[in-house]
Amino acid sequence: MTKTYNDFIGLVKDINNLRAAEEHLQWDQETFMPSRGIEDRSLQLATLSTVIHKMLTSSAMDGYLKELSSPKLDESLTPEEKANVREISWEHHRASAVSSELVNELAKTRSVSSKNWIEARKKSDFSQFYPHLVKLVDLRMQEAEAIGYEDQPYDVLLDEFEPGLRTAQVTTLFSRLRNKLVPIVADIINSDARPDPTVLGQEFPVDAQRTFNHTLATELGFDMERGRIDESAHPFTTGTVHDTRFTTIYKPDNMSFALFATIHETGHALYCQGVPEEHYGTPMGHAASMAIHESQSRMWENMVGRSEEFWKYFYPKLKESFPKQLGKVSLEDYHFAVNNVHPSLIRVQADEVTYNLHILLRFEMETALFNGSLDPKDASDVWNEKMQDYLQIQVPDAARGVLQDIHLSLGYFGYFPTYTLGNLTAAQLFRQVESEIPDIWTRFTDGDMGTLLNWLRRNIHQKGKLHRANDLLKNVTGQSLDEDIFIKYLKQKFGALYGI
Amino acid sequence: MTKTYNDFIGLVKDINNLRAAEEHLQWDQETFMPSRGIEDRSLQLATLSTVIHKMLTSSAMDGYLKELSSPKLDESLTPEEKANVREISWEHHRASAVSSELVNELAKTRSVSSKNWIEARKKSDFSQFYPHLVKLVDLRMQEAEAIGYEDQPYDVLLDEFEPGLRTAQVTTLFSRLRNKLVPIVADIINSDARPDPTVLGQEFPVDAQRTFNHTLATELGFDMERGRIDESAHPFTTGTVHDTRFTTIYKPDNMSFALFATIHETGHALYCQGVPEEHYGTPMGHAASMAIHESQSRMWENMVGRSEEFWKYFYPKLKESFPKQLGKVSLEDYHFAVNNVHPSLIRVQADEVTYNLHILLRFEMETALFNGSLDPKDASDVWNEKMQDYLQIQVPDAARGVLQDIHLSLGYFGYFPTYTLGNLTAAQLFRQVESEIPDIWTRFTDGDMGTLLNWLRRNIHQKGKLHRANDLLKNVTGQSLDEDIFIKYLKQKFGALYGI
Repeated sequence: MTKTYNDFIGLVKDINNLRAAEEHLQWDQETFMPSRGIEDRSLQLATLSTVIHKMLTSSAMDGYLKELSSPKLDESLTPEEKANVREISWEHHRASAVSSELVNELAKTRSVSSKNWIEARKKSDFSQFYPHLVKLVDLRMQEAEAIGYEDQPYDVLLDEFEPGLRTAQVTTLFSRLRNKLVPIVADIINSDARPDPTVLGQEFPVDAQRTFNHTLATELGFDMERGRIDESAHPFTTGTVHDTRFTTIYKPDNMSFALFATIHETGHALYCQGVPEEHYGTPMGHAASMAIHESQSRMWENMVGRSEEFWKYFYPKLKESFPKQLGKVSLEDYHFAVNNVHPSLIRVQADEVTYNLHILLRFEMETALFNGSLDPKDASDVWNEKMQDYLQIQVPDAARGVLQDIHLSLGYFGYFPTYTLGNLTAAQLFRQVESEIPDIWTRFTDGDMGTLLNWLRRNIHQKGKLHRANDLLKNVTGQSLDEDIFIKYLKQKFGALYGI
Repeated sequence: MTKTYNDFIGLVKDINNLRAAEEHLQWDQETFMPSRGIEDRSLQLATLSTVIHKMLTSSAMDGYLKELSSPKLDESLTPEEKANVREISWEHHRASAVSSELVNELAKTRSVSSKNWIEARKKSDFSQFYPHLVKLVDLRMQEAEAIGYEDQPYDVLLDEFEPGLRTAQVTTLFSRLRNKLVPIVADIINSDARPDPTVLGQEFPVDAQRTFNHTLATELGFDMERGRIDESAHPFTTGTVHDTRFTTIYKPDNMSFALFATIHETGHALYCQGVPEEHYGTPMGHAASMAIHESQSRMWENMVGRSEEFWKYFYPKLKESFPKQLGKVSLEDYHFAVNNVHPSLIRVQADEVTYNLHILLRFEMETALFNGSLDPKDASDVWNEKMQDYLQIQVPDAARGVLQDIHLSLGYFGYFPTYTLGNLTAAQLFRQVESEIPDIWTRFTDGDMGTLLNWLRRNIHQKGKLHRANDLLKNVTGQSLDEDIFIKYLKQKFGALYGI
C-alpha cells in the first residue's frame, strides 16, 4: 500500500465515520426522538452534512485522487483498492460539480415543498403542489447539467443510486417488462381463484407478533449482538457492519404487515452484517448498489418468505404463537392468503405481481419530466391514465394517486427504478442459487436458512463494492439483467395459485 | 451584532451541533447500542472529537477571538455576547495549549489504564493499578503545565469543570466543612434511632416502578415532548434543550434506588430543558457549571425529594402503586427509611450526610497527588486512614476502597469536588427560595412543584452561562458559597430524625 493510498483511506474513513454518525441520528429521529427534538436534530444533521461535503471536496482529497489515478500509481493498486478509488472519485466528482448555492437552494426548496406536499395531500389538491414540482425538476435539472452526462439529464439522477446504469437501458428493459406484466395482471383479475380474506383479517396481539418477528429474524441469520430491531412508521434498515438496525411496524389487525416488513428488512440487514469487515469504513465495506440491496430484501421477503416450502417449516411455529387465530387454517390457505394479488392504489401496499407496475409508471413519469415530454401540470392526469392501463384501476383522488409518495415531495427522482431492478435481480440470483444448490427448497422446509445466506455472503455480501451492480450480476449469473427470469418465476408461482 | 461576532457564532454553533451529535452517540452507547457496536462507535466518536478540536483551534476561530477581544469590539458587545466570547476563549485557550501528541498519549493511556483498572479491581490489587496512576498523574500534570496556572497545577484540572474556581479556595472551604461534618456523623452513629429496614427491603415489581417514576418526573415538570426517560447501568442526563434525555435503573429489591436516581436526574434534566432557547448552540444556551448542575439535581433529590412535605403529597400515590408493600407503612416510617444515614464504603450508595466526606477524601487525595505531598504508591493507605478518621469505617479491600471509582481509572481529576460544591450550592439556593417564598413547603404538600421550578428557571436556568458559578450564586443569594448553610440544614433535618 502506498503512502498516498494510506492517507487517502484515512480521509475516506473519517468521512465514513461522520456518515455513520449522520445515519445513526436519522435512525434515532425515526425511532426514539421526542417530537420537539426535530429542531435541534436538523441543525446537527445540517452541520454534519456540511463538514462531510467539505472533506469530500477538499483539496487534500482532490490531490489524493489525482495522484492515485495516475497510470503509475493505479497499476500498483489491488482490485479492492482500485474499487475504493473508483467509488470515491465518483462521489468526489459529483460533490465538487455542484455549487454550494445550488445545494442550499435545493435543501430550502425541499424543506418548503415537503411541508406543502403534506398540505396538498391532505386536500388531495395536485394544483397546489404543482409549482413545487416545477421548481424541484428545475433544480435537479441544474444539478444534472452541473455534474454532466452523455445522453440525457435523468442519467445523472439514476446514477446517484445505480452507478453506471443509464436511462436508455432501463427504458428498454422496463418497457419489455411492462408488456409482459400487464397481461399477467389481467389474467389474475379475470381468474375466479381468491384467497380467503378471513385468514389474515383477524386480531393478532402485538406482543405475540413482536416475539415471533424477533425470533424469525434471528432464525434467518440476523445477529442481535451486532444489531437491533425497533419500530417506526416506515420500516427501514441502517447502520454499520457491527451495529445494523432495522425497524418494522406492528398492526393489530394485520399480522402479515409486520411479518413481511420484518423479513424484507432482515434481507437488507443480513447484507449490512455480511459486508467484508476488513474493509470497514471504505466503499469496499459497503453494499454494491441500491438495486442489489433491494434484491436481498425482496428475495427473502418474496421468493423465500412467501413460498410454501418456507412456511412448511415456520407455519407450525406461527400457529403456536396464534393458536386461536390460525389453529384451523391449513398451510395451503395461509400460503394463498400471503400471496394475494389484487391491483390497488397504493404502492407500499402492493403485492409481488402488481408492485412493479407501480414502479414502471413512476419511472415513465420521471423520465418524461426530465426529457421535456411531460409538462409537470399534466403529471396527475398521466398518472391516472397509466393506473387504468396497467392495473385497470381508477384513481379517485390525487392523495391516492400522484401525491402518495414522499419521494416526489423531496425531488428524489431516480430512486424508484431501483425497486424493480431489485426484484428482477432477486429472481435472477435466485435462479442461480437453484442451479448451484438443487435441494435449496428442501433445505427451507427443513428450517435450513443458512445455506442460502452463506451463498449470498460468498457471492454478494463479501464482494462489497468491488464490482458495480451489473458486473456483479454477470459474474455471479453469467448474464446481464433479464426480465424473462422474473416473468417466468411469476408465471410459475402465480399460475399455480390462480390457475392461469 | 457585528459581522465578526456573527461569523464567530456561526462557527460556535457548528461546533455545538457536532458536540450534540457526539453526546447523542454516547447516550445511545449506554442505552440501546448492541454489544458488538462498540468498535464502530469508538471510531465515530474519535473522528467527531478530532473535527471538533480542529474547528475550536482553527485559525478562523483564533482570528475571531482576537478581533472580539480588542477593546473597540468588546465594548460593542452585549453582556450575553461577552459571556459567549469569554467561554469560547477559555475553551480555545485550553484546546490550543495542549499538543496533539499529548492528547493522543492521554487517550491511549486512558484506554490501557481503564482496562487494567477493571482487572485490578477484580483482584482488589492496588499495586497492579499503581503504575497507571503514576502515568495518568504525570500526563495530566504535563497538560496543566501546557495550559498554565498561577498558583498550582490542580487549578487547571479543577478549572475544566468549575471555570474560575481555584484549588486554594476549595481547600479552605472543604476543610471547614470536614471539621463540621465529622462530629455530625459521629453523633448519628452513636444515636439509637434507626429506620425500619423492612420498609424498603421488599420486592417492588419493575413495571410498577417504571410507571410511577415516569409519572413523578412529569409531575416535577419534565417535558416528555422535549425528552425521554430510558434505562442504563449508571443513571445520567444528556441532550439539548429540545431533546433532553435521562436514564434511571430499576432494582426489583430496592425501589428507592430508581426513585431517587429519577428525582436526581430529573433535577439535571429540568435544568437542561430550562436554558434560554434563544441562545441555542452557544455557551449562553448551556448550564453555568458542573456544580450548579449538581445543585439542581441534589436540591430536587435531597432537599425536596427526601422531605416529609414532598411525600405528604406523593406518598398516597406511591402507596397506590405498591399497596401490598406499603399499605401498612406510615408516612413517618417511610420518610425515615428514605433518610437512613449510615457510614458505608461506596460513594455512589452513600446518604446525604456521609456523601460529602467521600468527596472530601477524594479531593484531598487528588490535590496531594498534584502538589507532590502524596506518593501515588501510598494512595490506598491514605484512603483507608481517612475512611477510618471521617466515617469510622474500615476498608476491607482496595476494590471497595481507592479502586472503586471509574474517574480514577481515566485520570478524571478535578471532577469530584463539583459534587460537594453542588450540595452546598443547593442548600444555599434553597435557603434563598425559603426566604423569597415563605410558603414553599406548604406548596410541596399541595403538590405544587411548579413554584420552585419557576424560581429556578428565572434565577438559574435562564441565565445560561451569563455568569460564572460563584458570581451567579452571589447574584442570587447575596453571598459566596458558605458551608454553614448546608451544615445548618443537615443539623435541622437529621437532628429531628436522629434526636441529636
